[in-house]
Amino acid sequence: MCQLLGMNCNNPTDILFSFQGFCARGGKTDCHQDGWGIAFFEGAGCRVFMDHNPSISSPVAELVRNFPIHSTHVIAHIRKASVGGISIENSHPFTRQLWNRYWVFAHNGDVPGVELEKDSFFKPVGQTDSETAFCAILEALRRKFPIKRPSNQQLYGAVQEITRTIAARGAFNYLLSDGEAFFAHCSTNLFYLVRQAPFAAAHLVDEDISVDFKEITSPSDRVALIATVPLTDNEPWTQMKAGELLLFQDGMPVTMPAREAV
Amino acid sequence: MCQLLGMNCNNPTDILFSFQGFCARGGKTDCHQDGWGIAFFEGAGCRVFMDHNPSISSPVAELVRNFPIHSTHVIAHIRKASVGGISIENSHPFTRQLWNRYWVFAHNGDVPGVELEKDSFFKPVGQTDSETAFCAILEALRRKFPIKRPSNQQLYGAVQEITRTIAARGAFNYLLSDGEAFFAHCSTNLFYLVRQAPFAAAHLVDEDISVDFKEITSPSDRVALIATVPLTDNEPWTQMKAGELLLFQDGMPVTMPAREAV
Repeated sequence: MCQLLGMNCNNPTDILFSFQGFCARGGKTDCHQDGWGIAFFEGAGCRVFMDHNPSISSPVAELVRNFPIHSTHVIAHIRKASVGGISIENSHPFTRQLWNRYWVFAHNGDVPGVELEKDSFFKPVGQTDSETAFCAILEALRRKFPIKRPSNQQLYGAVQEITRTIAARGAFNYLLSDGEAFFAHCSTNLFYLVRQAPFAAAHLVDEDISVDFKEITSPSDRVALIATVPLTDNEPWTQMKAGELLLFQDGMPVTMPAREAV
Repeated sequence: MCQLLGMNCNNPTDILFSFQGFCARGGKTDCHQDGWGIAFFEGAGCRVFMDHNPSISSPVAELVRNFPIHSTHVIAHIRKASVGGISIENSHPFTRQLWNRYWVFAHNGDVPGVELEKDSFFKPVGQTDSETAFCAILEALRRKFPIKRPSNQQLYGAVQEITRTIAARGAFNYLLSDGEAFFAHCSTNLFYLVRQAPFAAAHLVDEDISVDFKEITSPSDRVALIATVPLTDNEPWTQMKAGELLLFQDGMPVTMPAREAV
């Protein structure tokens, strides 16, 4: 299995503190040693750093731990391989282009047996069930909205529909974003936290490191963190429900209307 | 304008020596300061490092200069912005998925006015003419071969056809690869070099650094380098002709039959 880390903010923020704790799980405090990756949206652009070395000893992870990239949408993943060898092509997050956006996806769990149509435009490059599931989501979106990106509300309904089909096959905890929408789906394990004013000190679970966010934030900042297992031990993380799909915007989950035909 | 650097080898090779000279052109020996990027194919997987900071001072470039990634297909680019702002979404190389492969593209020149059909699957995320041209190439390939990747020979014919159409609009020097085929097209400026046994010392143009390849190669190694301007001053670089499209494999250009309908 793997672990996920996501961040969605109203103002571009660096993820150095959270990534430091998350990285420790890739070989130090936990056993997710089979590669890692992190995607940062910067405007419409997207940068992915990844390595098949454990995050705790990867030179690329060291760069990311020390190089503050400010982003509003971040998706990270550390891998413990189940399906597919240890390689770059099997490392999350995966990236594709749909409409005029890049889409990024990372998955925790197993969803065996997802099949794509022969003429599916999106196809996996590697061997993981995760990448195939990502392709199935995007192909469903593309078929429903072939020309251009729909509204977030329409997107939510369509993502929920295809997610339910795939989630019937196993554990489908995932993070999905195009730099505008930020989806988090929970099958078994996913927590989130909204960090906002009044800010306080936070202490990592995996390293004895604290940061006092009062000192480095402005009152209007708001940051949502989403993780397989809470990253800090003194903040009020909320466990998502099985089958719950949240859409985050500007650092908090937004309530979407009941699913309807789109 | 921009500069291109490509590498195609028969055995996975690091590009540290060439990248060091190339990087110097991003702010030290030349003025290509508006971002840079490099893509490494590793198996079917692909890793891209990029930054909108000049390559000479970018922390990400420093990582790439010091972290040997072994690859058979590498495409790098340093940018001097003409069309599109300085941002990640406008930084080359660009990446897309087509069939079950990632495709990577970097361009030097200007090809204004390329238009995509409204229902083109491939769409640009940023504002450059380069990314639009890349989308036009992939869309032409997808329409001709909708289900699966054709042979390199068929691919060559189709790439040549769409390239001629686009190149009629301006300077279209580019590198394009899916980690299997490696295309280089010259409109105005592109040189290549095949480095093979008997190996000798090479000296960079942009830095006073030499490497004796006799000491770090095996006799069967063969490496093709492709660059806008030769990187070394004591090796026999070949200037490509205007309108020439080369397909490199295993570290050398292969002769393709005359263009035919595919």
